[in-house]
Amino acid sequence: MPLHYPSSTPTITKTLTTLLLRQSLPPPPPRTLLLLPRLNLRTMSESARPPNEGGRAPKEGGKRKEKSGKEKRGFELKVPKGTKDWEGKDMVIRDKIFSTITDVFKRHGAVTIDTPVFELREVLTGKYGEDSKLIYDLADQGGEICSLRYDLTVPFARWLAMNPSIQNIKRYHIAKVYRRDQPAMTKGRMREFYQCDFDIAGAYDPMLPDAEILRITTEILDSLNLGSYTIKINHRKILDGLFQICGVPIDKIRSISSAVDKLDKATWEDVRKEMIDEKGLDPEVADKIGEYVQKKGGKELLDELKEDKALTSNDSFAEGLEDMRLLFDYLEVFCVMPKLSFDLSLARGLDYYTGIIYEVVTEASAPPAGKSTQSQQAPISDDPDADRSNDDSIGIGSIAAGGRYDELVGMFANNAKGRVPCVGISFGVDRIFSITKARMTGEVRGNEVEVYVMAFGTGLLKERMEVCRILWDAGIKAEFMYKNKPKLPQQFTGAEKNGVPFAVVLGENELKEGKVKIKEMGLSEGHPEKKGVDVSKDDLVAEIRKRLAQKEEGARAASIEGALQGVDLKEKAPEM
Amino acid sequence: MPLHYPSSTPTITKTLTTLLLRQSLPPPPPRTLLLLPRLNLRTMSESARPPNEGGRAPKEGGKRKEKSGKEKRGFELKVPKGTKDWEGKDMVIRDKIFSTITDVFKRHGAVTIDTPVFELREVLTGKYGEDSKLIYDLADQGGEICSLRYDLTVPFARWLAMNPSIQNIKRYHIAKVYRRDQPAMTKGRMREFYQCDFDIAGAYDPMLPDAEILRITTEILDSLNLGSYTIKINHRKILDGLFQICGVPIDKIRSISSAVDKLDKATWEDVRKEMIDEKGLDPEVADKIGEYVQKKGGKELLDELKEDKALTSNDSFAEGLEDMRLLFDYLEVFCVMPKLSFDLSLARGLDYYTGIIYEVVTEASAPPAGKSTQSQQAPISDDPDADRSNDDSIGIGSIAAGGRYDELVGMFANNAKGRVPCVGISFGVDRIFSITKARMTGEVRGNEVEVYVMAFGTGLLKERMEVCRILWDAGIKAEFMYKNKPKLPQQFTGAEKNGVPFAVVLGENELKEGKVKIKEMGLSEGHPEKKGVDVSKDDLVAEIRKRLAQKEEGARAASIEGALQGVDLKEKAPEM
Repeated sequence: MPLHYPSSTPTITKTLTTLLLRQSLPPPPPRTLLLLPRLNLRTMSESARPPNEGGRAPKEGGKRKEKSGKEKRGFELKVPKGTKDWEGKDMVIRDKIFSTITDVFKRHGAVTIDTPVFELREVLTGKYGEDSKLIYDLADQGGEICSLRYDLTVPFARWLAMNPSIQNIKRYHIAKVYRRDQPAMTKGRMREFYQCDFDIAGAYDPMLPDAEILRITTEILDSLNLGSYTIKINHRKILDGLFQICGVPIDKIRSISSAVDKLDKATWEDVRKEMIDEKGLDPEVADKIGEYVQKKGGKELLDELKEDKALTSNDSFAEGLEDMRLLFDYLEVFCVMPKLSFDLSLARGLDYYTGIIYEVVTEASAPPAGKSTQSQQAPISDDPDADRSNDDSIGIGSIAAGGRYDELVGMFANNAKGRVPCVGISFGVDRIFSITKARMTGEVRGNEVEVYVMAFGTGLLKERMEVCRILWDAGIKAEFMYKNKPKLPQQFTGAEKNGVPFAVVLGENELKEGKVKIKEMGLSEGHPEKKGVDVSKDDLVAEIRKRLAQKEEGARAASIEGALQGVDLKEKAPEM
Repeated sequence: MPLHYPSSTPTITKTLTTLLLRQSLPPPPPRTLLLLPRLNLRTMSESARPPNEGGRAPKEGGKRKEKSGKEKRGFELKVPKGTKDWEGKDMVIRDKIFSTITDVFKRHGAVTIDTPVFELREVLTGKYGEDSKLIYDLADQGGEICSLRYDLTVPFARWLAMNPSIQNIKRYHIAKVYRRDQPAMTKGRMREFYQCDFDIAGAYDPMLPDAEILRITTEILDSLNLGSYTIKINHRKILDGLFQICGVPIDKIRSISSAVDKLDKATWEDVRKEMIDEKGLDPEVADKIGEYVQKKGGKELLDELKEDKALTSNDSFAEGLEDMRLLFDYLEVFCVMPKLSFDLSLARGLDYYTGIIYEVVTEASAPPAGKSTQSQQAPISDDPDADRSNDDSIGIGSIAAGGRYDELVGMFANNAKGRVPCVGISFGVDRIFSITKARMTGEVRGNEVEVYVMAFGTGLLKERMEVCRILWDAGIKAEFMYKNKPKLPQQFTGAEKNGVPFAVVLGENELKEGKVKIKEMGLSEGHPEKKGVDVSKDDLVAEIRKRLAQKEEGARAASIEGALQGVDLKEKAPEM
């Protein structure tokens, strides 16, 4: 996967000046702080920002354009470059994605751990190749030197090495990571973004955790309803063996591997040209590679390769092939095979992979036309983890990727017990979010209120409050208008705005009889309950619960119906 | 609330040196990274750490003490000072607390927003008084100057000011905040810790959102089952009026206010002495204050104060009292009054409060004996937010606190529309966690697996995998052992270790008949199902679901029974 990370060069002089300035902190504000004239914080004009700041992308801070210009000192009110506030319906969609993913993880017995946002600088050092320059450092304010985490894998490996009593774990972690990159928000590349990792650590019988990871991947993608997708899979040992067999010099393996990895976006002719002209590979070797790396398929490809003595005589290749055979066997039981594409060109950038590697591509993330040449010419990055969720190939790259890494934890551990083998996957939450949002057809509700409590006439404030209290006591989500005497249409608008399904309407006469009215919102004209139903106040909770359950049942039925339309009835579980 | 934040002084020279060093990044590792001799990362001895590093607290990193001493360069593998990994059962308890709290927020129609972990430095500047020195800055690596957020209130105010179209919102935010303080982990003071904030922004009829915030507080504390608690409440205007009436000079109001706030931990004599001897207050004025600030009570105190013409002739006092009257009226409808203590000594440190202020104290967080003198002698901090969740008075302080702040958003906004009034509360998650953990009696399960699939004899690996797949397809949480031929006792141990409620046991003979065995774990000897029940494989999902539902029902019944033992039947909702 080619990655390009142009990034700004920090200058030491600027750093020093700013640090000196920052030492002089403002004096503590007096108690009467709030009586002082209010600060105007947004007077710095767009053009007055430092020249090394790139153009702003939409949604990035500064939503209000008006400037008062009254104060000379101030700043534009915005979030830092490459970060964003998650809010409103985006937040609801994102939370839904997180809970869908988390449900699947838990279904497989996974637990979560939560590591600090920053790590000791040394923990991150030497893990990310030349992209170490993208690591955010904390200012040295005395004490330890720390940096913001760059991914969730290295902190997990650090945690495992620190806890040798934990010899196996299925852990997931959904959290923000940080890369001091040139943000390209239109491409979805941010400086603060979410990663969602799942890893199985432990020494087990071969390919069993590997198979379960891929099973989990299908469960998640099916639950997220992202459309059709393919899991591309290969094996590091197969690739290494292949390059050995073809005669790639050891010092060229990395760059040739990168070139091969581009076959999903470029033609073989382009890749061949790059290998020969740019990487200096012998044309004969290139052609030999070409024979193999253009192959992709399912189990039949495995059988074909097994017949090829030239390949299987190489130990590395043979070992990789045996792993794949076993894995495919297991994946058949798990009903994952129909989603799989054994792809000999899949290489993946990460150094630390030692076994199977995989990448999930959806139709929604397929390459847009005319993109291939561009990405080919861009410089190749060594970023070992960017692929996993934040590379600039959103729209052309994967939505999830991972592999087996048996040696990473050992980099931290100092004895054999600490060298726990791992296999994992990372889901690109931001990309999944974009695809989900684009595919959404129904309305997303801003909040989850189930009942809006309102009143006719004189306001009946305390009566509304009491009904809310009764509903809250029963665990029902309810709201009322914070107004002594709100008008009825105003209250209906309040309910409609958030798509609240039920209104409870209070009237003085009804209350005297111990009754309240339940009104389902959005009923069509002519519906028998269009005007609402009077129920005894004592039965209110039961009546609301009954109606909520009915409504939920209806929604579930509708969603099953919708889901069934997409079912491929030919996919059938194998018989035992 | 007195707060003491001794903190280390950063030195510029050290900062510069480290920055210069940090510019020279290691070269990208070669492709053969993993074939290199493994780094040994833990060779730096305890004594070799910088002298300005405080003593390590338990649980903070470095769990492994053994050192290889082979390499000269390396570092102790640990998390940064004042941070921790959340893992295992602690993580489960914490997540349970978060979801309990979140459920209540959602019941009241709240939504969440997620702001970046770092903000532009200017956004934080001037908001935290002299504790600005506790703000974590990011290193200046070119571009904007940013700092880690210090709390969740200022980012919320920044967000409101940036989004003037949002004129009202009920928002909650549970997230980490950062304070570069001397950590005192035994006291629960961390550099990275969670805050849990709920705020209602918007211009409404008086005291309605305020009342709902306090109602939410009781719902949360009741759900968390932390034992008995008291919401101490006062009003900034009552306090200001009181000091005016008693004749406190304007420049002494802040320090006198701080002294008065100590009345929960110190005697009146001690506080009086401090006001006169240390703060230079006229003894007569002190005695006048003493008449009032020792008063606490419920509605009857309100009535008593209303009769006092000397007090009600002061505009500020009268306004505060009218707010309180209205609030108490509403809180009666919401059944909150039994939890309330109107406490004229409650002052709270935050400058930005403009209306009611409150603080929740549980019995579990009551002052330990002999603590009062010590906290009185400590220097008073201006930290305006520490009270809300991370002050060093854990065990003696509050578990939640907040108030009305109508002017904070206006500090960011540059027009009237941007000045949104707010009222909010912050829950001290770390303290709630400690209390919950200490009160826990039952076992906490590490994961949520419902069924452990195992086999007799020959392993039946693929058969186990297939049964897992069937269960997963049905949304049932299931696991099997990653071993070709595991022994049965090994598998039972795997299930018991995590408290899995059900085992499905496969045997060749049963499978031939299309049957599998369901075994409920932990049944007592003599139970009719002790040896398990054979069911048809086709009925497995239904049979498991039935048993899970029964078990859940049983647990719910037991928990209701348990909860009822603590119910005070005298507390009754007022009749309308």
